[in-house]
Amino acid sequence: MLPTALVFDVFGTLVDWRTNIAKAFAACDVPGDTHELADAWRARYAPILMEVNRGSRPWANFDELHLVTLDDLLAERGQDLPLEVKRRLVAAWHELEPWPDTAAGLDALRRDHVTAALSNGHVALLVDLARYGRLRFDTLLSAELAGVYKPAAEVYLMAARLLAVAPQELMLVAAHPWDLKGARAAGLMTAFIDRPLEYGPGSPSREDPDADEYVSSLDELAGRLGR
Amino acid sequence: MLPTALVFDVFGTLVDWRTNIAKAFAACDVPGDTHELADAWRARYAPILMEVNRGSRPWANFDELHLVTLDDLLAERGQDLPLEVKRRLVAAWHELEPWPDTAAGLDALRRDHVTAALSNGHVALLVDLARYGRLRFDTLLSAELAGVYKPAAEVYLMAARLLAVAPQELMLVAAHPWDLKGARAAGLMTAFIDRPLEYGPGSPSREDPDADEYVSSLDELAGRLGR
Repeated sequence: MLPTALVFDVFGTLVDWRTNIAKAFAACDVPGDTHELADAWRARYAPILMEVNRGSRPWANFDELHLVTLDDLLAERGQDLPLEVKRRLVAAWHELEPWPDTAAGLDALRRDHVTAALSNGHVALLVDLARYGRLRFDTLLSAELAGVYKPAAEVYLMAARLLAVAPQELMLVAAHPWDLKGARAAGLMTAFIDRPLEYGPGSPSREDPDADEYVSSLDELAGRLGR
Repeated sequence: MLPTALVFDVFGTLVDWRTNIAKAFAACDVPGDTHELADAWRARYAPILMEVNRGSRPWANFDELHLVTLDDLLAERGQDLPLEVKRRLVAAWHELEPWPDTAAGLDALRRDHVTAALSNGHVALLVDLARYGRLRFDTLLSAELAGVYKPAAEVYLMAARLLAVAPQELMLVAAHPWDLKGARAAGLMTAFIDRPLEYGPGSPSREDPDADEYVSSLDELAGRLGR
């Protein structure tokens, strides 16, 4: 069975957060290995989202959470930065380069499928990323609309409901097994896309043997789903 | 002051519902004046939304409400149609031609502004209309996300919140004074766009002396908001 609609994870799946965040640390003259700083900042992402999902932290969007995790990261290292510099670093997450296949691949997939972002990033952040990367979706969907973060089932079910398809007709495309697993638990089809450079050269390899599709690019996925 | 982001009403403002709905009545061999039927169906739109907003009718999306109002319309005339025909008529609201200036005007406005639909139509309906009319927005926003219909203030405030702008930085573009009035009550800027053919030749003329802008096309609005 082929999906009617496709939803896409964004950070790491469609855009390269690491390169630009490292550049932003460099532009702000933050001492240290800028790629290591980017990785360490990103590593604080999943834990703080789980705090929100568990209810031990009130809902906050990515700008707010990025500021918290940046403060934590700096404190751990005995560093601090002026608030204005921290705001520039948080804002850097709004301008990330897409992977080389992303824009054309989204266009190809949109010809025969309804396409939507489905990110933990808030709507305004997704608007900025889509404008910056010239990425075209039919619409943007965000965990913000569900009030809970992926991989909670509500997020995937909200996407199916808003796109008026059954969960079984909807496919999540993502580079992260934890996200795909969450989608499958909600009844969605899943496509694993390999992004071997998400954490730079020598990134830990990832696999998802349970995914319905396993591809190396969005174009490859368009070919697999071609009608 | 110029707006940062623009939200657009859709039915009547960007797309011509009347022509296609009349065609759908004709295609379904419904007896009577097909344009008059389209007008009479549309006339049942505002009252039923107010039933939802007042709480006397549970939330229902446009497909569901269109089916109810079509049944009412037919019953009033002592007519009935097979359910499958009624479903075809309801589905006709998903494929409406944009006004001639709409697609290019949206593109022009999107160059310097964040743009979003802000319709009482549900997200899936807006996806279909945007795909059918090849209309490009940064994202689609719907009263469905607020759980209440325009002109309730929550809808406009939800749009400002999701786009991360102050209500005062957001402008609603619409052909309907009741919608613009609701937006102003929520603190938005407003642009009235004249759509003299919404109800066909000889449509009742409309004005909104309180709107910040008064234009005859989206291109004209792009010129007025040009930076």
